[in-house]
Amino acid sequence: MPVPEAPTFTDIEQAARRIQGFVHRTPVLSSRALDEAAGLRLWLKCENFQRMGAFKIRGAMNFLLSMSPEQRARGVVTYSSGNHAQAVALAARLNGVRATIVMPSDAPRSKLEATRAQGAEIVFYDRLREDREAIGRSIAAETGAVILPPFDHPWTIAGQGTLALELLDQIDEPPQALIAPVGGGGLLSGCAIAAKGRHPGIRVFAAEPETANDAFLSFKAGRRVEIPPPDTIADGLRATRPGEVTFPILQQHVESVLLVSEEEISAAVRFLLFRLKILVEPSGAVAVAATMFRKLPAGLSSAAAVVSGGNIDPEALIEILR
Amino acid sequence: MPVPEAPTFTDIEQAARRIQGFVHRTPVLSSRALDEAAGLRLWLKCENFQRMGAFKIRGAMNFLLSMSPEQRARGVVTYSSGNHAQAVALAARLNGVRATIVMPSDAPRSKLEATRAQGAEIVFYDRLREDREAIGRSIAAETGAVILPPFDHPWTIAGQGTLALELLDQIDEPPQALIAPVGGGGLLSGCAIAAKGRHPGIRVFAAEPETANDAFLSFKAGRRVEIPPPDTIADGLRATRPGEVTFPILQQHVESVLLVSEEEISAAVRFLLFRLKILVEPSGAVAVAATMFRKLPAGLSSAAAVVSGGNIDPEALIEILR
Repeated sequence: MPVPEAPTFTDIEQAARRIQGFVHRTPVLSSRALDEAAGLRLWLKCENFQRMGAFKIRGAMNFLLSMSPEQRARGVVTYSSGNHAQAVALAARLNGVRATIVMPSDAPRSKLEATRAQGAEIVFYDRLREDREAIGRSIAAETGAVILPPFDHPWTIAGQGTLALELLDQIDEPPQALIAPVGGGGLLSGCAIAAKGRHPGIRVFAAEPETANDAFLSFKAGRRVEIPPPDTIADGLRATRPGEVTFPILQQHVESVLLVSEEEISAAVRFLLFRLKILVEPSGAVAVAATMFRKLPAGLSSAAAVVSGGNIDPEALIEILR
Repeated sequence: MPVPEAPTFTDIEQAARRIQGFVHRTPVLSSRALDEAAGLRLWLKCENFQRMGAFKIRGAMNFLLSMSPEQRARGVVTYSSGNHAQAVALAARLNGVRATIVMPSDAPRSKLEATRAQGAEIVFYDRLREDREAIGRSIAAETGAVILPPFDHPWTIAGQGTLALELLDQIDEPPQALIAPVGGGGLLSGCAIAAKGRHPGIRVFAAEPETANDAFLSFKAGRRVEIPPPDTIADGLRATRPGEVTFPILQQHVESVLLVSEEEISAAVRFLLFRLKILVEPSGAVAVAATMFRKLPAGLSSAAAVVSGGNIDPEALIEILR
């Protein structure tokens, strides 16, 4: 199968019109305390306030609204560690489409329950031993359902990119840099196309956990490097390598991949909670962590960071607060 | 000494102009999940996003800006369990005024540190054995400093009332009811005057912890009833009786005092955290708790609740999450 083409800036503008009314226009926050911690003017695009608590509804909704009626009648199947699962479940319900979700048996309970509450069918797999994509493909083959990839598809990518368009509309001056977490790269590749399309001079950075550094290694090698299933509190960034579609986009637009430690991620979650009063999940705090701990190149005076989600179980939060 | 007069609606409008630029215009949030839980359309005025993490900066700033230059030169002294302390410390610093704060020795650590960080001088007292007002008066007598009461003064009350003016400007239709936490009554009395002045038909309610029910008992008795120092996780609502200035205002404008249990307060904090992704301190969640647990009279279809603050220590939050 040929690799699908990257979405264009126009695709993202169209996606924004398509999903409008189905997704929230999330707030952009800033604070003196945060600027001081980061050493630059920092805007946060707060997708923890998005429907289902994460940006994923953007891609899922754009995918479902881009499908033909015939495809929709067949239902969708997807695989996800959590936020994509609940987003697809909601988007499918809103579109009256049947959804089957392949989820790891150790997915956070809150994400599991939220997915089930939307009426999706859940199939479990063992994250360390089984291949979720293979399971998804076999369900698709059996049932005729359309696979809705969590990141590696132009419709998904275009949907996630709407976040950056919205962000740049919401702030008065364009930031010098945009930084977003990278897992499979759907969010970052879409946002990079959108941001560069709107402001060609903007510098785009990825933030990734040290312990899940597949994008970092892939950038260094110049090809998609696969790592073993990583162990990180950033459970949304456990993809083992960048996507076929997303990686070339990242290579073209992203200046570098900034790594953060588990402790830096926890510190960012605590800072956002106790100083900004917002709940951000570890994956969602990775770009803020990279900024707070000064991983961006020197000389920048402003940046926008994507806070990608806020879904975390009480037990996991208690661990971070201890 | 004669009891000072209640502020008028015009006083509150003037306070709003006076403090503009020094305080944040905090967001009003709403959510489907919250409306479902409360059984009505509910708007939250989120003062947890206010400067210093609580509404108190409104009253403190209005007080300081209402003082004469001669008074300002003498400095201010106040007593507070936390949020008022840090607000006065910030407002004093912004006005170049010296501040002395009498704080209980068991005040939350975060509030203590934030107060100290603003350069205020702190004097400790034993909350169960000493009279903070007497200590404040003796400091004022010794140093000539002006006492800045946490709630029982028309300037403080007018400042807190600006919150309700702002809230009613931010939502398209007037809510049928306004509900706010009551401690000493500064916030609620100011908001009641503002809300009734803007929309005479609005119904105003107080929310109070069951274990700190001095306003409830005072309403029932028709006079200010004093209770022993209460034990509640809502540490900002530990006042032992309504104020001389605030109580008649509450009697005039507030329909009833709704009581919530400690467990209902904790449940509201958890709901706001995990569903709305915002951190609210127990005192700040009391009005939401009363609404979620259906303490409002039947038949209301909309309400606005004041989320008064978001300052809580990690240890206290962990207790609530367990």
